[in-house]
Amino acid sequence: MDYTNAPGRNHLFVPGPVNIPEQVLRAMNRNNEDYRSPAIPAMTKNLLEDVKKIFKTTSGTPFLIPTTGTGAWESALTNTLSPGDRIISFLIGQFSLLWIDQQQRLNFDVDVVESEWGRGANLDILASKLAADRNHSIKAICIVHNETATGVTNNLSAVRKLLDDYNHPALFLVDGVSSICALDFRMDEWGVDVALTGSQKALSLPTGLGIVCASPKAIEASKTAKSVRVFFDWKDYLKFYKMGTYWPYTPSIQLLYGLRAALDLLFEEGLDNVIARHSRLGKATRLAVEAWGLKNCTQREEWVSNTVTAVVVPPYIDSAEVVRRAWKRYNLSLGLGLNKVAGKVFRIGHLGHLNELQLLGCLSGVEMILKDIGYPVKLGSGVAAAAAYLQNNIPMIPSRI
Amino acid sequence: MDYTNAPGRNHLFVPGPVNIPEQVLRAMNRNNEDYRSPAIPAMTKNLLEDVKKIFKTTSGTPFLIPTTGTGAWESALTNTLSPGDRIISFLIGQFSLLWIDQQQRLNFDVDVVESEWGRGANLDILASKLAADRNHSIKAICIVHNETATGVTNNLSAVRKLLDDYNHPALFLVDGVSSICALDFRMDEWGVDVALTGSQKALSLPTGLGIVCASPKAIEASKTAKSVRVFFDWKDYLKFYKMGTYWPYTPSIQLLYGLRAALDLLFEEGLDNVIARHSRLGKATRLAVEAWGLKNCTQREEWVSNTVTAVVVPPYIDSAEVVRRAWKRYNLSLGLGLNKVAGKVFRIGHLGHLNELQLLGCLSGVEMILKDIGYPVKLGSGVAAAAAYLQNNIPMIPSRI
Amino acid sequence: MDYTNAPGRNHLFVPGPVNIPEQVLRAMNRNNEDYRSPAIPAMTKNLLEDVKKIFKTTSGTPFLIPTTGTGAWESALTNTLSPGDRIISFLIGQFSLLWIDQQQRLNFDVDVVESEWGRGANLDILASKLAADRNHSIKAICIVHNETATGVTNNLSAVRKLLDDYNHPALFLVDGVSSICALDFRMDEWGVDVALTGSQKALSLPTGLGIVCASPKAIEASKTAKSVRVFFDWKDYLKFYKMGTYWPYTPSIQLLYGLRAALDLLFEEGLDNVIARHSRLGKATRLAVEAWGLKNCTQREEWVSNTVTAVVVPPYIDSAEVVRRAWKRYNLSLGLGLNKVAGKVFRIGHLGHLNELQLLGCLSGVEMILKDIGYPVKLGSGVAAAAAYLQNNIPMIPSRI
Amino acid sequence: MDYTNAPGRNHLFVPGPVNIPEQVLRAMNRNNEDYRSPAIPAMTKNLLEDVKKIFKTTSGTPFLIPTTGTGAWESALTNTLSPGDRIISFLIGQFSLLWIDQQQRLNFDVDVVESEWGRGANLDILASKLAADRNHSIKAICIVHNETATGVTNNLSAVRKLLDDYNHPALFLVDGVSSICALDFRMDEWGVDVALTGSQKALSLPTGLGIVCASPKAIEASKTAKSVRVFFDWKDYLKFYKMGTYWPYTPSIQLLYGLRAALDLLFEEGLDNVIARHSRLGKATRLAVEAWGLKNCTQREEWVSNTVTAVVVPPYIDSAEVVRRAWKRYNLSLGLGLNKVAGKVFRIGHLGHLNELQLLGCLSGVEMILKDIGYPVKLGSGVAAAAAYLQNNIPMIPSRI
Repeated sequence: MDYTNAPGRNHLFVPGPVNIPEQVLRAMNRNNEDYRSPAIPAMTKNLLEDVKKIFKTTSGTPFLIPTTGTGAWESALTNTLSPGDRIISFLIGQFSLLWIDQQQRLNFDVDVVESEWGRGANLDILASKLAADRNHSIKAICIVHNETATGVTNNLSAVRKLLDDYNHPALFLVDGVSSICALDFRMDEWGVDVALTGSQKALSLPTGLGIVCASPKAIEASKTAKSVRVFFDWKDYLKFYKMGTYWPYTPSIQLLYGLRAALDLLFEEGLDNVIARHSRLGKATRLAVEAWGLKNCTQREEWVSNTVTAVVVPPYIDSAEVVRRAWKRYNLSLGLGLNKVAGKVFRIGHLGHLNELQLLGCLSGVEMILKDIGYPVKLGSGVAAAAAYLQNNIPMIPSRI
Repeated sequence: MDYTNAPGRNHLFVPGPVNIPEQVLRAMNRNNEDYRSPAIPAMTKNLLEDVKKIFKTTSGTPFLIPTTGTGAWESALTNTLSPGDRIISFLIGQFSLLWIDQQQRLNFDVDVVESEWGRGANLDILASKLAADRNHSIKAICIVHNETATGVTNNLSAVRKLLDDYNHPALFLVDGVSSICALDFRMDEWGVDVALTGSQKALSLPTGLGIVCASPKAIEASKTAKSVRVFFDWKDYLKFYKMGTYWPYTPSIQLLYGLRAALDLLFEEGLDNVIARHSRLGKATRLAVEAWGLKNCTQREEWVSNTVTAVVVPPYIDSAEVVRRAWKRYNLSLGLGLNKVAGKVFRIGHLGHLNELQLLGCLSGVEMILKDIGYPVKLGSGVAAAAAYLQNNIPMIPSRI
Repeated sequence: MDYTNAPGRNHLFVPGPVNIPEQVLRAMNRNNEDYRSPAIPAMTKNLLEDVKKIFKTTSGTPFLIPTTGTGAWESALTNTLSPGDRIISFLIGQFSLLWIDQQQRLNFDVDVVESEWGRGANLDILASKLAADRNHSIKAICIVHNETATGVTNNLSAVRKLLDDYNHPALFLVDGVSSICALDFRMDEWGVDVALTGSQKALSLPTGLGIVCASPKAIEASKTAKSVRVFFDWKDYLKFYKMGTYWPYTPSIQLLYGLRAALDLLFEEGLDNVIARHSRLGKATRLAVEAWGLKNCTQREEWVSNTVTAVVVPPYIDSAEVVRRAWKRYNLSLGLGLNKVAGKVFRIGHLGHLNELQLLGCLSGVEMILKDIGYPVKLGSGVAAAAAYLQNNIPMIPSRI
Repeated sequence: MDYTNAPGRNHLFVPGPVNIPEQVLRAMNRNNEDYRSPAIPAMTKNLLEDVKKIFKTTSGTPFLIPTTGTGAWESALTNTLSPGDRIISFLIGQFSLLWIDQQQRLNFDVDVVESEWGRGANLDILASKLAADRNHSIKAICIVHNETATGVTNNLSAVRKLLDDYNHPALFLVDGVSSICALDFRMDEWGVDVALTGSQKALSLPTGLGIVCASPKAIEASKTAKSVRVFFDWKDYLKFYKMGTYWPYTPSIQLLYGLRAALDLLFEEGLDNVIARHSRLGKATRLAVEAWGLKNCTQREEWVSNTVTAVVVPPYIDSAEVVRRAWKRYNLSLGLGLNKVAGKVFRIGHLGHLNELQLLGCLSGVEMILKDIGYPVKLGSGVAAAAAYLQNNIPMIPSRI
């Protein structure tokens, strides 16, 4: 008996790893290959060109690193900064907390700007710190675009504006793990210096690729950054890029083909259509939460996330029990509340290659679970609210018109 | 651009071919093998034993024929009957009609007992025909257990009772294409002589196996049946069974491994639990239809089908447009109305390896479509009705308790 | 423990089912779909056009039947002939024997022209029979292009020439199961009326599609042929072709996508290059057999087969033991000798998506097995002979130059 | 046109990434899952227990790190050593060179003991260094068990013996990338403190798991080691092991299931049988090289590798041309000569889930290539030499006896 067996499909609504499209599964269903043959470099060259598009950059240099988001963070930091460097980092939830923990363990001088969980980055404090920093002691601003633990999306163009307003040369490092390919993200326009994501998020692949993109300024910084690094060192990649063989060490052949398929799907649907779809699913989810009489962990409309919604349960309910029950009775995978919001929120990921009816199925399940555990929800209420919005907004599937 | 691409998963709610579980897809992801090696006969022996369980027979002889349901029909008929034989056949919808067409083209003397589409087999007429048939001119009764076109389930034990009441020796041939492994079916208890299904139905495999099971009486009949047959001749199978090599011609290696995986899943869940799950999904669907103020094509509760529901639309709506829109806007695959009920009904298949949230996602989609095309449905109403029932009846997933 | 587990890959050298290319496995790794959606008919239309190319016909009508080669035989016969029709059929080995058995059981008047096993069809007798048949009592000539049991390829253009010489209107029905897509086959040029193959042969798919192609004359004949048929009746296909929905019953979605991939591979390599590759592998195999001092079952160069070689063992060796040992010690699957040549020959299939080093690996295995069982072979001798030929004849891989 | 398309299977004989068994491909053909559900921790617990067996350790602690071999190196070093620590490292080929480069960039004080490429680690120098190191300034001995660039296997038990003879407490760090699961390796018996491998080597998985195993002494050292590390920090793993959730960051669900399948295959065959098979394939390869009149890059029998053979070509031949031609004409993937031996050697990997006929196919290809480029080889000579040995030594396949 396989522990994961259950009738029908698993409804995977954690904010990553997300559902893998059949097209991607097919592309990865293959034997290993010699990565030193002419085929893999030819393919890689093409992938690197196309990966830039998901960052909306033409000048950036992408790296496909056999690692996770945590490793991608480390790649971003160690290649651009030196021990002791002062950085500003926003703490707004569990994932920004973990990044800050990494920054501290890498011996940077981290100036933590904390917000209440459920609120976005405090940009007023950033403004005052930038204003005070006449001698440019701040070497980098580190920010999570979308805090996956609380469902909060930060305003990156506002950060750029502040940097510009104060004419501050700090590097702008962005964790786009649960945003890139799903939320509006513009590396070049917003002057982001390093952006990163993981393959198991909006790209809808298995875990295993940390995708990092560096601006020319970040590449320049990497030449003098003194953080100790080898596996994550961009220098080795750049050397092999120059040689045209691309890989300083063995890539996952399967993930390369999977990435090819994922990008093809993305470009076929259109990146902006993909973002609009996430916006639609996010809005529908929030309407359902509202209809259930529950609160979104995100405190203000300006911060709401279109890739994950953290739902606050009443004090008499343990949100972990919602998640447990979802798994055990409905074959529905929801996200736990983490750290400060453990027991208080559960999370609905609406991220990746997902459509409206899948979401409505999930929402109908959440309604039943809430009722199971004693919350007085009206069955169908959230679904109705979400569907009313969706029914007016879903477009025809272009390939089928 | 692949014509079937669309964001997220296709919601496959036609009454076959149905969703294939990942476990089955994995099992079939393999190279060909020599079917004359010792491995395939060993595997086949085991499969044949286990296949009997889905028919609830111990005395039957199963045949795994590389064909479709149509071929399985032909196998059942030509092995047991001779041209000119009188048979009684019930016409209650498109699939029984097609089987009758086949019976006629195979030159049997078909005594068609017709019902209005939406009603079950008229057993009163059967009773009177049996009563009148003192000299046993009727050689077989042919009946579709579940008419997939109208969502009507016939009462097989009542047929058996009539045969017994009249002590009539006619063969009892049953199309179980959309019933076996999903509805209660008892070959031995009901004295069924030939039962058949197709791999792409409740077994949740690809199309390609016609699975036919013959009672000892049917096997006996096959020795004298004069219908011309070669590909479908049981004799060749029986010869190879005896030799222990099992296959008169090349089987699909992939389907054998897929069948193994499908049976393993079925037995792990438990055949009776699978039937209960179908009952639950059927009931929930009918409650939704009722909540929408629409009629079930099935005219009486006694005939309702737990594997497919044919929904009657109001006269001012073209049901084909419901199906078209489901496909083009919601990536939802519904069944068309066929022949007499074309344009009048659309069908929701709730058959195979499927769970409650998948169904609720489908129902929420149907609600939106109905609204799209001008039917005054209250969004969420059907989902609420279905969920209210399901929330009280879904069991925990045993492997996860 | 899986009965088929063994270190490394199975070396599959039976003449079918043959190795499936990874590209085809990938294409088939997918869920079911609604075959009544617009996607499948669009795809089918295109497949039917492309399938004609493998028969080298522009005027033929192809049928993709969910069956095996045995069913394809039945389709060819029952659609074009009536019970009692006189046909000439050549018996040259086990598969022509099985076809003849079918022809007899379908109640045709079969005029069997037998050759010693290892020899081709006796065309002199055909000539005399045609000469004698002034009133055209002969309705069809049935011939296996390549007899898989003995490795004998018949000369189809010579058959056509005889029919033309005698201006005889008999239908020309060809089993191309182990030839089409691998040997030179020209339906239009040779005036073949029905040609057929199976998916698990040179197309390198799983078993499950009987692919039949009918000339206009055969289609015309089907309108009056009186053989009883339903599942195999072309009429139903033609009706659905006309309607544009293509399928009278449920096709295997997976095999359709697999066929698409297989044809794409075939056309990318080039059909004539594929045929040349088979010719190269056939020649190399025969040179190895010669080097081992063994006889080819095929008695004359004019009949040698480029898809399978039947190797005659000395009287003191049981060829079944060669096959058993290949499987049990070397994970090599060879073909048994069948019927008259059981125990006397083993068969090396060199059919499908296969390359030179795969064949040489197989040949080196056969050498070791022969030595194992006491035949005084010089290890390396066959490989050397084959390699000497191949080394002068293998072309560069076009996609890699 | 796919750049990697070619008739038949690719013959993958690079020493990694190696062929993936179908069983493993199947296991990985699956959607993502929530790694925080109860299923993944339960599975991980079991995997960690079983992974110890491939290291032959009971006291070690394994880590499954989402990285490559290069990352596994970094994990081994940074968790056990502090900047400035003196380590002895053996340079005997390209991979030991790269590890040394990493050691230097991580700021250790690396005492490089160099050998001519083709020779093993100079243990005499190690002995003298250990003898001289009265105050135990040497903190670790770093050695590559099998140098993949030259096909040289070092004697690890001799290293342990020296450490014991001098009663030296230095940590014993071993790169087992191209040895573990293929060559005899005994972590506990040889007192290895950190051993590591990569998933794409003898485990026959895709790239993506760095598998590191730490002795209790290494775990103890990790508590005080001052090398900066976050992604590679064992501490985070140990914390999650204790919590029973196992993963500090997202694992690849697919690789976990793949590892499960790979271990199952390994244990079914038996680890010692797997090692014996590699020994057989290595010996056969060396006999072929000898028969061709070519030299093995490995200078002495005591160092020969059973996972890769580096073949020295005559001065008038460019070994890179051998590799190019193998790929372009024979669909055979061989390993290039690297760095000092570039152009001078090509490499045959005989590593992973591979059998004898696969190897003989490869060897027959190498013979043809050598002839193609003007080396006077006798076709069949190497195959004959290898086959003569193999024919006496291949066992029956246990599951098939």
